[in-house]
Amino acid sequence: MRARVFVTLKPSVFDPQGTTVADALHTLGYAAVRNVRQGKYFELDIDAQTAEDARKLASEAADKLLANPVIESYRIEVGNA
Amino acid sequence: MRARVFVTLKPSVFDPQGTTVADALHTLGYAAVRNVRQGKYFELDIDAQTAEDARKLASEAADKLLANPVIESYRIEVGNA
Repeated sequence: MRARVFVTLKPSVFDPQGTTVADALHTLGYAAVRNVRQGKYFELDIDAQTAEDARKLASEAADKLLANPVIESYRIEVGNA
Repeated sequence: MRARVFVTLKPSVFDPQGTTVADALHTLGYAAVRNVRQGKYFELDIDAQTAEDARKLASEAADKLLANPVIESYRIEVGNA
């Protein structure tokens, strides 16, 4: 199974990377871009029988290693391949 | 509209960050994790009338700024809010 983990800064946390990307896009002429938030993305290939098992393992991995729960939140999607 | 852009290294490109994360997960006891690829994740809030317009702008932004097309590929999802 493949689990995709998206880690983003919580909305209340200032995101200087995203602000820089937004400024650069404005400089390139993309004024329609209002706001940008940047995060991390992980693809985990997991040996698991069920999607629930894979999600549980990915969730533990995110809690312990991939995300800093003080300032970041995460979202998990599980699928085949 | 909100466009989500996922940027990952192409499969043929070595991903030392992902390898390090996989090794760390193995050390933590998660032997079921076979492989990890790490990438970047962007959420773009875009002033656009249609999802097609938002996707087109996000695609241009990815080509020009968010991804390095030599070694990275990207995927875009568009939705409301």
